Amino acid sequence: MSQTSQPIDFYFDFTSPYGYLMSEKIDALAERFDREVRWHPILLGMVFKVTGSQAPVTLPLKGPYILRDFQRSARFLNIPYRHPSRFPVATQAAGRAYYWLHGRDVVLARQFSHAVYRAFFVDDKDISSLEIVLELAIQQGVDSAELQAALQQTEVKALLQSASETAIERGVFGSPFVIVDDEPFFGVDRLPQIEQWLETGGF
Amino acid sequence: MSQTSQPIDFYFDFTSPYGYLMSEKIDALAERFDREVRWHPILLGMVFKVTGSQAPVTLPLKGPYILRDFQRSARFLNIPYRHPSRFPVATQAAGRAYYWLHGRDVVLARQFSHAVYRAFFVDDKDISSLEIVLELAIQQGVDSAELQAALQQTEVKALLQSASETAIERGVFGSPFVIVDDEPFFGVDRLPQIEQWLETGGF
Repeated sequence: MSQTSQPIDFYFDFTSPYGYLMSEKIDALAERFDREVRWHPILLGMVFKVTGSQAPVTLPLKGPYILRDFQRSARFLNIPYRHPSRFPVATQAAGRAYYWLHGRDVVLARQFSHAVYRAFFVDDKDISSLEIVLELAIQQGVDSAELQAALQQTEVKALLQSASETAIERGVFGSPFVIVDDEPFFGVDRLPQIEQWLETGGF
Repeated sequence: MSQTSQPIDFYFDFTSPYGYLMSEKIDALAERFDREVRWHPILLGMVFKVTGSQAPVTLPLKGPYILRDFQRSARFLNIPYRHPSRFPVATQAAGRAYYWLHGRDVVLARQFSHAVYRAFFVDDKDISSLEIVLELAIQQGVDSAELQAALQQTEVKALLQSASETAIERGVFGSPFVIVDDEPFFGVDRLPQIEQWLETGGF
């Protein structure tokens, strides 16, 4: 990584289909330009309170469209996708587990994120369930009892809360949201623009 | 055009920046695949009443982002863009003029649409003004007095109204909205997917 290159920030909610699609692409794209990516799971519910929005899937006309677009966009990007039978779901457990893991092992936290997203959007696991989150962490070699205890701690809960607040302060209003050198990009459909931005240093 | 190829439907509001960007691209893309495009100006205000939405530019956090994204997306697509000093604006006059012209000369109506969009998004003309709309029509060789009289007719007003209603029935919830063989695509950022759809006949 060159000295002038700042890490790319990637904000997402674990229940976000387009966030999942971005999670399968952003690291490889960044690596082509010797850039690192910092992952930041957040709670879209907190964001939507500020923006006065609601989950797009609940909106008239847009709801049916977006369900179709999730799957079509996945095919377009060659990413496996099966729309979850429970959707959207709460992601507090997964997000808190992420930040606790991240404090101990950044690589492990990244692997755990992929595992959560794929469990939800490929294997139709209910990632709102504490049990499922623990199971996914165990598969990454995490001590389940230790994680379960951590998830009850106020400090661990505060990490997810404050990550969401920081995101809002930076202008994040949806998922995925990628910030490259202070330039904000919303949506997985901005991948071509992100690529051009990284190639040219801004356009 | 092959016998099996249906025209592509392109729904847009004249005040929509992404609609303008699509208007500069969709005909050339369709032509590469020997497809025709039917243009349908609509009133987003009618759509937003059904969806309970409002102009994205008015939303907290999303508003400032989208203003930036309009201009960045234009640069990305190599389309001239200057954000209008009055925005968004009412587009009844332009939309009604379009349908009246379309009933007389389809090619002229298309040229008029380009003129309206470029007047608004390049030359910063207030296209909500009847005077400006008439001026743009005169530049296309239209008889101004005849058009001005037509814009007062109930039947001409009804054309724009019913185009908007038909769009809503087809699931249109924003601008631009493109329908290819019953497959809906929302947003200028779906151009790569539309291209792949036209290339492969669906994916």
